[in-house]
Amino acid sequence: MTGQEAGSDFSTRGAYVTGGTEFTRDTNYIETRITRDGRDGYPVEPGRYRLIAARACPWANRAIIVRRLLGLEDAISLGTPGPTHDSRSWTFDLDPDGRDPVLGIERLQEAFFRRDPGYSRGITVPAIVDIPSGAVVTNNFPQITEDFSTEWTQFHREGAPDLLPAEHLEELRAVNKRIFTEVNNGVYRCGFAGSQDAYDAAYDRLWTAMDWLEDRLSRQRYLVGDTITEADVRLFTTLVRFDPVYHGHFKCNRNKLTEMPNLWGYARDLFQTPGFGDTVDFEQIKAHYYVVHEDINPTGIIPKGPDVSGWLSAHGREELGGTPFGTGTAPGPVRAGEEVEPGHGAG
Amino acid sequence: MTGQEAGSDFSTRGAYVTGGTEFTRDTNYIETRITRDGRDGYPVEPGRYRLIAARACPWANRAIIVRRLLGLEDAISLGTPGPTHDSRSWTFDLDPDGRDPVLGIERLQEAFFRRDPGYSRGITVPAIVDIPSGAVVTNNFPQITEDFSTEWTQFHREGAPDLLPAEHLEELRAVNKRIFTEVNNGVYRCGFAGSQDAYDAAYDRLWTAMDWLEDRLSRQRYLVGDTITEADVRLFTTLVRFDPVYHGHFKCNRNKLTEMPNLWGYARDLFQTPGFGDTVDFEQIKAHYYVVHEDINPTGIIPKGPDVSGWLSAHGREELGGTPFGTGTAPGPVRAGEEVEPGHGAG
Repeated sequence: MTGQEAGSDFSTRGAYVTGGTEFTRDTNYIETRITRDGRDGYPVEPGRYRLIAARACPWANRAIIVRRLLGLEDAISLGTPGPTHDSRSWTFDLDPDGRDPVLGIERLQEAFFRRDPGYSRGITVPAIVDIPSGAVVTNNFPQITEDFSTEWTQFHREGAPDLLPAEHLEELRAVNKRIFTEVNNGVYRCGFAGSQDAYDAAYDRLWTAMDWLEDRLSRQRYLVGDTITEADVRLFTTLVRFDPVYHGHFKCNRNKLTEMPNLWGYARDLFQTPGFGDTVDFEQIKAHYYVVHEDINPTGIIPKGPDVSGWLSAHGREELGGTPFGTGTAPGPVRAGEEVEPGHGAG
Repeated sequence: MTGQEAGSDFSTRGAYVTGGTEFTRDTNYIETRITRDGRDGYPVEPGRYRLIAARACPWANRAIIVRRLLGLEDAISLGTPGPTHDSRSWTFDLDPDGRDPVLGIERLQEAFFRRDPGYSRGITVPAIVDIPSGAVVTNNFPQITEDFSTEWTQFHREGAPDLLPAEHLEELRAVNKRIFTEVNNGVYRCGFAGSQDAYDAAYDRLWTAMDWLEDRLSRQRYLVGDTITEADVRLFTTLVRFDPVYHGHFKCNRNKLTEMPNLWGYARDLFQTPGFGDTVDFEQIKAHYYVVHEDINPTGIIPKGPDVSGWLSAHGREELGGTPFGTGTAPGPVRAGEEVEPGHGAG
């Protein structure tokens, strides 16, 4: 998400842990929405907006996956900052000349300042930028993917799945909430704990949720209903980072994901589904956390492990029934130019 | 071993990583030996010497295990410093009034200074102290356990195993050497690497050795011959720390020990053998590494994981043949007063 994940606005890179306290996420985002009716001044319009999403970041990864599952690649282009931002901003250091080829900027911060010259909160991804003005429209990540599903329907690919099925919406919201507070954010609560007591409590809270999921996924292939929903996308982005980062770096180490049979089978099932694993860059993920969080990894050394080849092994989850895309279809191959770098995936 | 594991003598606590360099262990110890003929001035004599060995430390754990396997408890008493030393010395903070009850000292450093008032190298465990003079005789850990086997034979218990069997001595020395340089010290080479290149090389070197061991232990129950030898003691003390510490803290994370079937079965087999697991204090082990190495874990937060209950699960290694103690017997129960604290083991 940000260089300011710990909630302080002008932190130097690496200042994520505040001594003596529990980690509290800053959830104050730019909440402008892109809608069909354009009521916030930003109507749905293909080619007008650019999704800025670092592959390293789980919150950005969510947006990349949903964009691809829904087939919004032609409607909304993608810019990908590198994994290791500096203290103030994600940077386009992977692009030629270090500039996003569409926006022409070196630092995502510039697009936030075009929106608000006095902007003082976190420079976070995912962010959606209005290409004509070069200004950030929104960085409100939970709303971004929901709006991809509900506001951009006219531009969905043929066979796009319904990630927010109306018949399960109540259950979906409840599951999403628990996954956010207990798992997506729960791993950060462990890693950025400012005291042993805060860490111990965060660890117990995380594993209570992991055990709940392990049990739930023993009986059903997906989290809600019998098709892939946004809940699965949200859980996946944390699970795929679990063993490479959260297990060691954030001390979420009761077990590896690979030791939780149902969660591990579930995660591999999704990974092997088009739209999930093909967005995952393990090298960028590791580089991000181990380099940026200087206060918990001051050496900046990036682990070579874990062995990720197991992500491609058989999972046997088909036996639980369910159809990944319901009456829809899987997305096609990854768009040219958007492929994960060779050697950075599980292959 | 020491607060100076990185090889600098007057480091503050936590200064283990030297930027840009490979970790090099200071192997300069006080090499005086306690022998039957007393040629160094310290003859074998029951009740005269005290082994100072922190349970947290793998090198000290080795001495605790060998002393117990050989039944030297009556001949050589045991003092156990707590897991978290300060910048200069291991301390007797677990003992009443913070003093070793036999030596009467608060800091192991005092016994080193009695030996040499100008002593300037590491204050390391294991160390053997001459009780009458209060002076350290030796902290030369590889020699300490060999001398337990060869010089203290008169005081071995009935049924004590031969940990250095003459018929396998050449092979044993070769295996011991590889285990020391590649595994016992190999994990430290990963954890204290001062550059990404040094770490990457250390990681590859460690896993080359781990794969060698995994293969070797697929065919034989123990490392050398068909009984427990000192090679097994030496490997065990690293393996038992692998998932709790080295996997995450030292970034030895290609796999957990639990993911290496033969090594994990072998380690459990030893753990469940009297003299091994009953010396292991997981809480002290974790507290030592995560608190003392401030430069790689500046928050000082100690992980709650991993789940260690699996150490007591069936291992099936009996099928490979071999007899743990050869023609000897297993040691009896742990001496009263030397038990691992309840809740700190795998039970």
